[in-house]
Amino acid sequence: MNAEIVAIGTELLLGQSVDTNSAWLAKELAQMGIDLYSFQAVGDNEKRIETALKGACERCPIVLTTGGLGPTVDDVTRKVAAKLAGKTLVYHENIAKEIEARFNRMKLPFPKANLNQAFIPQGATIIPNPVGTAPGFIVKVGKGHLACMPGVPAEMKAMFEATVKPFLAGLNPGGSLIKSRVYRTTGISESHLNEIIRDIFEKSTNPTVGVLAHKEGVDVRLTAKAATEQDADKLLDGLGKNLTQLLPNYIYGLDQDDLEAILGRILMTRSLSLALAESCTGGLIAHRITRVPGSSKYFKAGYVSYSNEAKTDLFGVDSYLIKSKGAVSPEVAVKMAEGALKRSGASLALSTTGIAGPDGGSPEKPVGLVWMGISDESGSQALEFRFFGSRDNIQFRASQSALEMLRRHVLGMSLKG
Amino acid sequence: MNAEIVAIGTELLLGQSVDTNSAWLAKELAQMGIDLYSFQAVGDNEKRIETALKGACERCPIVLTTGGLGPTVDDVTRKVAAKLAGKTLVYHENIAKEIEARFNRMKLPFPKANLNQAFIPQGATIIPNPVGTAPGFIVKVGKGHLACMPGVPAEMKAMFEATVKPFLAGLNPGGSLIKSRVYRTTGISESHLNEIIRDIFEKSTNPTVGVLAHKEGVDVRLTAKAATEQDADKLLDGLGKNLTQLLPNYIYGLDQDDLEAILGRILMTRSLSLALAESCTGGLIAHRITRVPGSSKYFKAGYVSYSNEAKTDLFGVDSYLIKSKGAVSPEVAVKMAEGALKRSGASLALSTTGIAGPDGGSPEKPVGLVWMGISDESGSQALEFRFFGSRDNIQFRASQSALEMLRRHVLGMSLKG
Repeated sequence: MNAEIVAIGTELLLGQSVDTNSAWLAKELAQMGIDLYSFQAVGDNEKRIETALKGACERCPIVLTTGGLGPTVDDVTRKVAAKLAGKTLVYHENIAKEIEARFNRMKLPFPKANLNQAFIPQGATIIPNPVGTAPGFIVKVGKGHLACMPGVPAEMKAMFEATVKPFLAGLNPGGSLIKSRVYRTTGISESHLNEIIRDIFEKSTNPTVGVLAHKEGVDVRLTAKAATEQDADKLLDGLGKNLTQLLPNYIYGLDQDDLEAILGRILMTRSLSLALAESCTGGLIAHRITRVPGSSKYFKAGYVSYSNEAKTDLFGVDSYLIKSKGAVSPEVAVKMAEGALKRSGASLALSTTGIAGPDGGSPEKPVGLVWMGISDESGSQALEFRFFGSRDNIQFRASQSALEMLRRHVLGMSLKG
Repeated sequence: MNAEIVAIGTELLLGQSVDTNSAWLAKELAQMGIDLYSFQAVGDNEKRIETALKGACERCPIVLTTGGLGPTVDDVTRKVAAKLAGKTLVYHENIAKEIEARFNRMKLPFPKANLNQAFIPQGATIIPNPVGTAPGFIVKVGKGHLACMPGVPAEMKAMFEATVKPFLAGLNPGGSLIKSRVYRTTGISESHLNEIIRDIFEKSTNPTVGVLAHKEGVDVRLTAKAATEQDADKLLDGLGKNLTQLLPNYIYGLDQDDLEAILGRILMTRSLSLALAESCTGGLIAHRITRVPGSSKYFKAGYVSYSNEAKTDLFGVDSYLIKSKGAVSPEVAVKMAEGALKRSGASLALSTTGIAGPDGGSPEKPVGLVWMGISDESGSQALEFRFFGSRDNIQFRASQSALEMLRRHVLGMSLKG
């Protein structure tokens, strides 16, 4: 089975909004084993929409559209779909009532134009919209099916999941499904990771293995094809076990896991609390920690000691030490961590001091050099890091390494490598 | 003149990456007055690419492609373009040398496959790639022009701006151009802003006026159509002056301006320095301030006093005061700001204390309530804010309001409204 997507909306052709719907649908279709032939975007123009949909319906048995189901005259998807299906548009009293009730619930005046949304091609399957006003529909065009959904991502996603996805699965009952699982790593380069897992890479055809590097680290995606979800899970579990044995230290989570949330869970289950002394990361680590709901349970305090005076004031770092060793040094990193530990009463403290750039570097201490200190009741140590790229990049990668260092410290793993 | 875009890459059809290139190009074309007919994505499949490009070249005199110019066998854009143009692919020794030199500069081994990127259709105009290895090209197909660029956004954008854009402008010398300017506001709701500028909105047809709300505030976009850039600027200046008179307090910058960078410039030119005492924003304001290069010149210190003990330790906030008034109160906000001012020696300090959620709210102090304090040598005051939405949203909007409050304070404007 193959499919095409047509995104409808002049705002897409003006670049005023980015079509993220097609990528989302593409991923869903891939997971269902449906081959996406192409996707395209057209404006709110009846003639062009008709040409695009006609072509798509001739090429593929499944065509999905997003957009053009609003209440105004611009919104012509309904009309074109009915024409291609050779049906008339029928007014659905119950849909009209539901739309009106929705406005009443939100205590908004009811614009009569919204009644246009109650017209559906005759004989079409209605796709209820649990999130907004416009319902969608699935209509037969020739031998294939045309499923029309709104362009608002939250509405489209809810409607695809509740109605369109089961409908498509029903068209292809014996078909295999595709399931992916992502193993998230950090602290290892893409090429080093590739070397370690090369064997898996080359030998495994199901699941297939894909590697994607981004600023948070390197993701390893396993994609299994099987008749049932259970069978797919079994395949993923098998290769996943291999992977975790090959990369024991680097994997911090799965799929959508954030390192800050993972670290939070680990701190909480061990009743540990945290303090931060940040210089070059400027509050970014504290921000990432406190993005996580409930972080007040384990996060005690953060200090952004951007100036040397603040380092002295907050942590009692000797101004002579800063002068002799430099603010970016293992000695100052350790003093900052120890000062934060003492000052906050937390059970664990981490510090950063480095050169985020673009200015301030020197041959001995280049932009991207960062020292981190870590301190708890058992002692303190400092680690050196080198990051590359823009200021944003250096700050973000430093924050990622800091969170990873904390995770490893708490779990008793080696801090780097 | 109209155009089509074809994005090439199987990863797009699998939903593994979102096509942001087409929206970027769409905006550029709109600004040049070139009508985008549609855009589409196809996989790395020679036959399908050929069908897509052939159709596009038949419909439009300008066709832009992104992707499929890499060094591997998957990358077939070159081949298809040559075929459609009725030309052979020619090996360019100088391009090959440049690619090899690039690898040498980065001290990377040179993969011979990259020499494939030195093949260009005969007679094509080469689009140099200042950012990566693959050059692009513009080739005549029928009566129109096919411009092929790589899919990596940074490369595509640099190449479009340096070579393709001037080329397209040359095809349409008498055509009018479109130029936009965005006025960035914060601290005002979309509906309130709409009310204030309604007259402008309704009367002005050139420039047109568009309003877009997002988490940083509400942008007002003016779009002018004129024969020359100077004429367009004159139109924009005229209406822009009206706009700034109607919204004197709310506009903080233009186009891509960030509030944190604007605030930084204002602090620097007035030789002021800043300290922060953050509770509910958890370091986000410090992070935004220190994202800006050179912020160490005006940012002294930040304190993330997430726990009540930290508020007492750092700022001497009386624990009895916290108990009687609550940590989220104007009294504690002022004490925090005053403590941060004193502790850091900065000339200006701001504090936040609030409930970011999703838990921790009560009927009197609901999720989203934030008190901010501001303090300098002339005195202190506290302001109340109510934010809505997710934790991320509440934290971000609070940080935006805090930066705006600082901007207004320094400029001697009223802090809210």
